[in-house]
Amino acid sequence: MNTIDAIKTRISTRQFTDQPITDEAVHTILEAGMSGPTAVNARPWSFIVIRDKATLDKLANSGGRPCTPLMSATMAILVCGDAERFFKFVPDFWVVDASIAAQNMILAAHEMGVGSVWLGCWPAADRMQAFGEALALPEGVIPHSLIAFGYPQEPSTKQKLLYEEDRVHFEQW
Amino acid sequence: MNTIDAIKTRISTRQFTDQPITDEAVHTILEAGMSGPTAVNARPWSFIVIRDKATLDKLANSGGRPCTPLMSATMAILVCGDAERFFKFVPDFWVVDASIAAQNMILAAHEMGVGSVWLGCWPAADRMQAFGEALALPEGVIPHSLIAFGYPQEPSTKQKLLYEEDRVHFEQW
Repeated sequence: MNTIDAIKTRISTRQFTDQPITDEAVHTILEAGMSGPTAVNARPWSFIVIRDKATLDKLANSGGRPCTPLMSATMAILVCGDAERFFKFVPDFWVVDASIAAQNMILAAHEMGVGSVWLGCWPAADRMQAFGEALALPEGVIPHSLIAFGYPQEPSTKQKLLYEEDRVHFEQW
Repeated sequence: MNTIDAIKTRISTRQFTDQPITDEAVHTILEAGMSGPTAVNARPWSFIVIRDKATLDKLANSGGRPCTPLMSATMAILVCGDAERFFKFVPDFWVVDASIAAQNMILAAHEMGVGSVWLGCWPAADRMQAFGEALALPEGVIPHSLIAFGYPQEPSTKQKLLYEEDRVHFEQW
């Protein structure tokens, strides 16, 4: 699919079938995540792939109602920041780098027919702690976003126009 | 181009030709930016499109050496956060949402043969102030990232393997 079509037809999927995602597709998704730009090429992230049903349920229960999609997801990936790799002059650039990785993964998945929904984590302290504990993150590994993946129960029907004229300014504000 | 190929062949472009980017392509890039997911669908961003050579030069000079690509760029887009639209319970989710918008724009541009380079801004206070002043941002409009765009002097030759096994963990850390 054309990249622009992929970007425009991506929707958040919250109900998944039980069709598993192949190891090859998981690899492609992770490779997409690692192909984004990062500030000073620090590549300050790690990824935790979760496919165990009990762990997905645990994450769903610990994350509150917005995390319900994890109940039917066949996989989730937690994007983490690795503090030891942060750019020392502007450490918080890691937040941007991890966001890029997650969006790349979502688009690569969509290309393969795999739906997803982004479950925000950083900087919500309660969710960061819950996910960090559930996945045994060591100190210095910071949960950023949890992405739930799976094949959609219903195909994407997104058609609405998302361009808003009043959000665009030319030359200056 | 296939989305996954686009993600994997995207490189940061720092030298551009003087071929202008059409208004239609600019619109497509902005639409891609506005098509990303945002937390609670807040869509907490605005975009400033800069094509005036004097302004691009001014931004290049105010941003330090990493901003040199703006000297040959034919366009730049500053992604901003709109504080009045932030999710009140987790305001800083805007940082993630703005990152998603920027990466979507970069991939859409790449699909059309337009190169780009991401010039980090948030949370680097000096650059945020310089860009904010140069573009007359009002209070509550926060510079996030400046993306320089243009047609590449040289085509992408990226082939290196970006997947790193040791960045991936399964089921838990």
